[in-house]
Amino acid sequence: MASSQVLFGFHAIGVRIRTAPASVIEVHFDASRRDARLRQFLERARNAGVRLLESDGMQLARMSGNHGHQGVVARVKALPKTHSLDQLLEDHEAAQEALPLAQRVAPLLLVLDGVTDPHNLGACLRVADGAGAHAVIAPKDHAAGINATVAKVASGAAETMPYFMVTNLARTLGELKERAIHVVGTSDTAEKTFYQTDLRRPLALVLGAEGAGMRQLTMKTCDELVQIPMRGAVESLNVSVASGICLYEAVRQRALPGGKY
Amino acid sequence: MASSQVLFGFHAIGVRIRTAPASVIEVHFDASRRDARLRQFLERARNAGVRLLESDGMQLARMSGNHGHQGVVARVKALPKTHSLDQLLEDHEAAQEALPLAQRVAPLLLVLDGVTDPHNLGACLRVADGAGAHAVIAPKDHAAGINATVAKVASGAAETMPYFMVTNLARTLGELKERAIHVVGTSDTAEKTFYQTDLRRPLALVLGAEGAGMRQLTMKTCDELVQIPMRGAVESLNVSVASGICLYEAVRQRALPGGKY
Repeated sequence: MASSQVLFGFHAIGVRIRTAPASVIEVHFDASRRDARLRQFLERARNAGVRLLESDGMQLARMSGNHGHQGVVARVKALPKTHSLDQLLEDHEAAQEALPLAQRVAPLLLVLDGVTDPHNLGACLRVADGAGAHAVIAPKDHAAGINATVAKVASGAAETMPYFMVTNLARTLGELKERAIHVVGTSDTAEKTFYQTDLRRPLALVLGAEGAGMRQLTMKTCDELVQIPMRGAVESLNVSVASGICLYEAVRQRALPGGKY
Repeated sequence: MASSQVLFGFHAIGVRIRTAPASVIEVHFDASRRDARLRQFLERARNAGVRLLESDGMQLARMSGNHGHQGVVARVKALPKTHSLDQLLEDHEAAQEALPLAQRVAPLLLVLDGVTDPHNLGACLRVADGAGAHAVIAPKDHAAGINATVAKVASGAAETMPYFMVTNLARTLGELKERAIHVVGTSDTAEKTFYQTDLRRPLALVLGAEGAGMRQLTMKTCDELVQIPMRGAVESLNVSVASGICLYEAVRQRALPGGKY
C-alpha cells in the first residue's frame, strides 16, 4: 500500500478509470447522495470492474483532505511514470519516424517557471492536455508538486500529462535547444505577439508566475520572446488562461495546410 | 455610506486607483508587512491622493470577508454603471461612426450561460478585459453577482468591464441578432471549430457552464455552434480558459489585414 494515492472528484477519478482501470484499488462514495451524476458515475465504475465502498461526506473529506470531493474518493496505485524528459522525447521521435510525414506531430511542451499555486498548476495541466501538449516542465525549487488538489483541478490531466520537475531549468532548456526545439517565452515587454511567430516548429512554450513573470536567467535562455496583447485595464492574464491562449494558437497553426511537422 | 463597497487585493484596488482615484474613500493596509510589493503599492496610492489607514491582518480579513486580501482592503464608492446593454451598444455604434473606417472595432461580447462560481466569473471578466471585449452578459437566474471575491479574481476587470445580468437571455440574444450581432455558441458536439468561423463580425460569444454546458434554449438561439478541439484525455476546459482561447482568436482575426469592422 506504500505506493497508493488518493484521487477525488468525478473528472479525476473518471479519467483514471477510463485510462487505467486496473490501477484503481477502490472508490469510496457518499451513500447519502442520490443524484443522476453520481449514479451514472457509479454505473460506469461498476462496469469497469471497480470495487465500490459506501461512505459519507465527513469520511470522504478526511480521506481527501478536501471538501471538494463531490462525493467520490478513490484509492489508486501510482502509475509507472515516464522515466525522464529525455526518454519521453526519444520515444516521441521514434514514434514520429514510424509515421507518414503528413501525420507527424512536432513536440509541444509547456514550461512553467515559478507556478507554485496548486490550482494554477492543475489548470495548466488541464489545458496542456486539451491542446495535446506532450509534457509540462517546471523547476524543482520554483514549482508545485502534484497533490490531490492539483489532480482535482486538472480534471484528469494529472493522470495523463507527463509532468517533470527538473533541477536546473536553464540547463534543461539548453538541452531542448540542442534537440532543435524552439524555446519561446512570454513577456509583456516583448515586441512581437505570439500570433507573429511560427508555433508549428518543435516548441517549448515558457510562462512565468503571475506578477513576477519568469526569472531573468530563464528569459535569457529563450530563443524568442513574445507578448499576449492586453487590450483593457488589467495588466496580465491568469497563467492557465495565458497557457491556453498560446497553446491553442499552436493547435491552430499546426492544423493549417502544410502545418504539420 | 450606503453605496460604499469593499475591494481587496493589489490588482483590484490598483486598477480602481488608476481608473477612478476619486472613488476610493480609503485604503486599509497591514502595517506589519514590510515587503517591496506593499511599499510600492502604498507609494502609488499616496501619489494618487488616496487616504491610507494602518490596520492588521485580522481586521482586514474581517472587512473583506476573506483571507486573500494580500494586506490591502479599500472602501470605495460605487461607480456609476452604464445604464443598459442597449445604451452601451448605442454608444459604441455612435463612437465607431466618428472614427475612420480603418480604426473601427466591431462589438465583441462574452455571454456566460450558467457560470455561477465567483472564481470563474472573476476569471472570465479578467480575460474579457484583456481581449478588449465590450461587455459580459449573463442570465439573472443562472449567474454569479459581482462580489469582493469576483473583483479580486478579476484583478481589476470588475471595475472596468460592464457586466449585465439580463432577465431573459434568449430574448437578449434575439435583440443582439436584430442589431446584426452574430451569436456564436461553443458546444463539444459542434462540427466546425472556432478557428473556422469569422470572428471579425460583430460578435456575441456564448459559453455554458462546465459540465452542463449552455441551456437548450440558449443553444437554439445561437446563429452558429463551434467546438474547441480537445486533443487529450480531459473532456472540457475551464470556462475562463475556453473564453480566453475564443476571445483571443477574435483578437487575432481582427488584427489581420482587412480584419477590422
